[in-house]
Amino acid sequence: MPSSPHAPTVVIENFYPCIEGGRHPVKRILGEDFTLWVDIFKDGHDIITAVLKWRMDGQQRWFEAPVTPTENDRWTATCAFAEIGRWEYCIEAWADTFRSWKKTFAIRVGAEDPDVPIEAAEGARLLLDASTRARAGGATDASAQLSECATLLQTLPPNEMLEVLLSEELQKLMDRYPDRSQSTVSPPLHAIVERERARFSAWYEFFPRSAEGLVNKHSRFRDCLPRLQYAQDMGFDVVYFPPIHPIGIAHRKGKNNTLTAQPDDVGSPWAIGGPTGGHRDIEPALGTEEDFVWLLGEAQKLGMEIALDFAINCSPDHPYVKDHPDWFYQRPDGSIRYAENPPKKYQDIYPINFHCADWKNLWRELIDVVLHWVDLGVKIFRVDNPHTKPVAFWEELITTVQRQHPEVLFLAEAFTKPRMMQVLGKVGFTQSYTYFTWRETKAELTEYATELTQGEMRWYYRGNFWPNTPDILPGHLQNAGPQMFRLRAALAATMSSTWGMYSGYEFCENEPYPGKEEYNHSEKYQLVARDWNAPGNIKAFIRQLNRIRRENPAMHLYDNLRFHHADHGDIICYSKCTPDFSNRILCIVSLNGHEPTASTVRLDLAALGLGPDSTYRVTDLLHPGASYEWRGAENYVALRPDGVSMHLFRVET
Amino acid sequence: MPSSPHAPTVVIENFYPCIEGGRHPVKRILGEDFTLWVDIFKDGHDIITAVLKWRMDGQQRWFEAPVTPTENDRWTATCAFAEIGRWEYCIEAWADTFRSWKKTFAIRVGAEDPDVPIEAAEGARLLLDASTRARAGGATDASAQLSECATLLQTLPPNEMLEVLLSEELQKLMDRYPDRSQSTVSPPLHAIVERERARFSAWYEFFPRSAEGLVNKHSRFRDCLPRLQYAQDMGFDVVYFPPIHPIGIAHRKGKNNTLTAQPDDVGSPWAIGGPTGGHRDIEPALGTEEDFVWLLGEAQKLGMEIALDFAINCSPDHPYVKDHPDWFYQRPDGSIRYAENPPKKYQDIYPINFHCADWKNLWRELIDVVLHWVDLGVKIFRVDNPHTKPVAFWEELITTVQRQHPEVLFLAEAFTKPRMMQVLGKVGFTQSYTYFTWRETKAELTEYATELTQGEMRWYYRGNFWPNTPDILPGHLQNAGPQMFRLRAALAATMSSTWGMYSGYEFCENEPYPGKEEYNHSEKYQLVARDWNAPGNIKAFIRQLNRIRRENPAMHLYDNLRFHHADHGDIICYSKCTPDFSNRILCIVSLNGHEPTASTVRLDLAALGLGPDSTYRVTDLLHPGASYEWRGAENYVALRPDGVSMHLFRVET
Repeated sequence: MPSSPHAPTVVIENFYPCIEGGRHPVKRILGEDFTLWVDIFKDGHDIITAVLKWRMDGQQRWFEAPVTPTENDRWTATCAFAEIGRWEYCIEAWADTFRSWKKTFAIRVGAEDPDVPIEAAEGARLLLDASTRARAGGATDASAQLSECATLLQTLPPNEMLEVLLSEELQKLMDRYPDRSQSTVSPPLHAIVERERARFSAWYEFFPRSAEGLVNKHSRFRDCLPRLQYAQDMGFDVVYFPPIHPIGIAHRKGKNNTLTAQPDDVGSPWAIGGPTGGHRDIEPALGTEEDFVWLLGEAQKLGMEIALDFAINCSPDHPYVKDHPDWFYQRPDGSIRYAENPPKKYQDIYPINFHCADWKNLWRELIDVVLHWVDLGVKIFRVDNPHTKPVAFWEELITTVQRQHPEVLFLAEAFTKPRMMQVLGKVGFTQSYTYFTWRETKAELTEYATELTQGEMRWYYRGNFWPNTPDILPGHLQNAGPQMFRLRAALAATMSSTWGMYSGYEFCENEPYPGKEEYNHSEKYQLVARDWNAPGNIKAFIRQLNRIRRENPAMHLYDNLRFHHADHGDIICYSKCTPDFSNRILCIVSLNGHEPTASTVRLDLAALGLGPDSTYRVTDLLHPGASYEWRGAENYVALRPDGVSMHLFRVET
Repeated sequence: MPSSPHAPTVVIENFYPCIEGGRHPVKRILGEDFTLWVDIFKDGHDIITAVLKWRMDGQQRWFEAPVTPTENDRWTATCAFAEIGRWEYCIEAWADTFRSWKKTFAIRVGAEDPDVPIEAAEGARLLLDASTRARAGGATDASAQLSECATLLQTLPPNEMLEVLLSEELQKLMDRYPDRSQSTVSPPLHAIVERERARFSAWYEFFPRSAEGLVNKHSRFRDCLPRLQYAQDMGFDVVYFPPIHPIGIAHRKGKNNTLTAQPDDVGSPWAIGGPTGGHRDIEPALGTEEDFVWLLGEAQKLGMEIALDFAINCSPDHPYVKDHPDWFYQRPDGSIRYAENPPKKYQDIYPINFHCADWKNLWRELIDVVLHWVDLGVKIFRVDNPHTKPVAFWEELITTVQRQHPEVLFLAEAFTKPRMMQVLGKVGFTQSYTYFTWRETKAELTEYATELTQGEMRWYYRGNFWPNTPDILPGHLQNAGPQMFRLRAALAATMSSTWGMYSGYEFCENEPYPGKEEYNHSEKYQLVARDWNAPGNIKAFIRQLNRIRRENPAMHLYDNLRFHHADHGDIICYSKCTPDFSNRILCIVSLNGHEPTASTVRLDLAALGLGPDSTYRVTDLLHPGASYEWRGAENYVALRPDGVSMHLFRVET
């Protein structure tokens, strides 16, 4: 027998969205409505009333919204989360005895059923019950009104009864005191509600030690302000720093990832921990904690945020090695195992054993490391290689941190197989790196961006599109010219609401380490000289992209990407609109960097909120003054690599 | 922190099949393999080993089968359930330390890594651990062998070590004693395993009171044996009786559902309960419990089963009304509410209040009613209108009965909206009535049969196809000729592995009650005269259909239906094959009862297990001697209503 005090009365199932049977939360942004669908039905002919209920995790108070039937027992409801944080929600549904009674009573009256008086008594009982509930809830007036209706119902002639009964006022009153004693409640589902930057952000990555662009001088946090202003000037709002912690000395890597460092080599910031400390400390060459906090404050004044890298790598010099050797893998000779991918050895890194006997303290410590930086003011973390640590650990870490600080965001740097990338999003990563970096053709871009933004993934995975990273100079950028750099930046910045680039991109730095996808003279291992105003840069173009993004609300949204047909295989056409179509952006981009292309584009006018034969104006936001009157679905564009190679149209009627 | 003694190490998710996130069981037949798919992956580069585990509900002993990776972290496994009953199953997966170590060790040896000795010691430790586990499990020999390998590993030269290590024998030994201390186990899923008749059955419904076909004599169970033999002769294996309980007297319905019965009117068997008893009793006019048990025995001798109707309707004379008035709905005047669909009133039926205060005793009593008949030997129940009773009640009833008697089968007679029909299958109904009765065109039949047998429904819903029932004489059979009756029987018997018909169908009884989908002079309310050998009957055709079904194993399967293209809109073509293609049936049926039709059919040869340009023989099992040599996908058929209107080909190479 069901153990509940009453048996389930209503079937509530087949929720959409529903990730892994409800095991994982959906993600929303504060201020963004959340609409769900669910099948609700029961035996017999009772009218069902249902509410969507939601409350902040750990709080008592429920919010409620009505659930309305669509067709075929499918219902829908929308809830508005009032704060960022973790929420639970569920459906409560019940047989609405009053509505059901009222419906059949009206038929009885119409049919002059001799049972009308006794059925009126039944209705009076329902009204009196509601009156009692109202009184219990302290609503004396409502209680009296309901009680009066009950009396009327037993004294008025049938047709006048109906008038009372069918009044909207009475139904509203009854809806405030429904009989939910036999209601059914669905198992709880969960949502993570985040601040807008979780969805809409433009990231600029630079190494603070190269902030001045001087190959012979290690820059310090106090030297970074001009770089923040520079990033702000290009329109970025998140500046991301590789790890800022003390860098290991033992087995430090030299330039270009060579095995032996020279005395003046600065080492890779991802080999964390040295004599001056570990993950809670700052590399002395960068400055002090006070300097860092000062820089955080300067960023805030500029309306920007600094994102830190959370990289769980320990160099052999890391304090953990001495204090907690049991957190690492022991070899039979008592030494600690370094990272390997045989036959390759990475003696500068000791991997953590997340499943060691002391795992609870280990996990707690790593979570406390994040909380330490949060307390200093860091609210965004880019997490290095999360796919090489247990998924359960990330779920624990993100949940713990966000329960205390729901404003904290996490970007997963997992370039790995699809299922792992997905599950990291499911367990809580706010944003994730993507395969965009390697998607080149129209077919590849269309398929991938559709999968990310239109399929189930859109409920839990926010793809942050990067054309480059310090680790990746993709083939198409190697030795490429500014046109390709502009193209890839434009695709990243317009297809996703969140994108980023690693410094040097604006100078079209394009020299690969021979035979690899890596940069030559990678900044990971050395200071890099840069003239931040070098000629030939594409800073103005990037500034323009970020301005267009900022000024157009449609670009702030993630799951509103729609593709349109273009006859030419090198021309890709897509749009982003706000739900009310008050802002509509149409991008038409040539992927061909060598030859002029021209094509008819066939627009999905409905996706643009336009009627079948509409006339509308398209204004190119990249090329001031270029504005055209278009009509209907089919229109013609001509693009050329050495001129107008893309249109970012605003569509207006 | 996760509360388990160790943190989850492996991600196991995205099961297929998986009904409502695992809330509902999948259905299988004893002897039928069950193959599932699931994503399994973890952080890092460890090799994963996984097993599928299953055990009978309530038992301790697990069965296990290997799980093997396919691609993209998708794994698959097959389990064979050993008995009918309710099972739970799950996946257990772990980082396979020995396999992972072995793989990198082989690379080290190849690369002449100076660390080989220390890594050999690591391997020896893994072997000794396994040796310890083997010893703990009482496997002294295995333990000694493993321990010996550990010694060899530390003494042999590297290349000879490898020989020992890479032996299949050692891996098998290690696989018997793996280190599962850090394994991850998925939440349990469930399966209902049933006997073959759950999937493959042919039902014949008749009213035992009309067994002799005499309008003036109420037949008794003792008169029913000839009817069983008659049904057996036509090839049916389940005989289904409308309710056999005492019929109510108060407000008894007369012929053609009239409101007032004549003294000699026998009443509807669905108005259950009278002075002589209720749901545990037998209508005296049919005989005694002893007579019924005798008939069950006779059916068994014929290789048949008798299915009873479980109809939770109480007439005003039902003993429950006196003994448990609180199980019904009370009206304000103290009277009990009869069934209504205002303005229609059904005074002969009192609906049960499944959510009354005493609901636990009520539910228990109704379950006990079923168990009472099970104890007498009834193993199949056709459940009347389950959609007008709580879904939770059926889940409780079927689960309780099947836990004690897993051989008991339930057919849901729910002709209602799709979601309710589906959920009744999900909560345990073995078979379900379908919309087949109203699907007429090629498009309708194709779409519906595909949804039932090829989509998610095939895991929980077994459609029993009925061309008619005592309640339904569908439009296309009203005043129709034998050709239409043959057509609808053939479609039902060949599209689904389980079908049924209500007696009279074999005589093409076709007279509707004017303006309704009901039979005129419905047997529900009166005795019906029938000459069981009346000329013009289609008994021989039905016998042929059931024989072809029985003789061809492909027809015993439910989810193997595949449609093929036919150019002509009135010709429908589909096949059923056994998984090994040892038996292949190809049905080509004209839906046009008026004109000859001819068409090219384009077969999906792969679905028939045939190569692209194969030559094969098709032999018509309905028309002895008709056998053709066909080649390739496209072939020509000509059908005519007054001659060969359908082919049921056996395909052979």
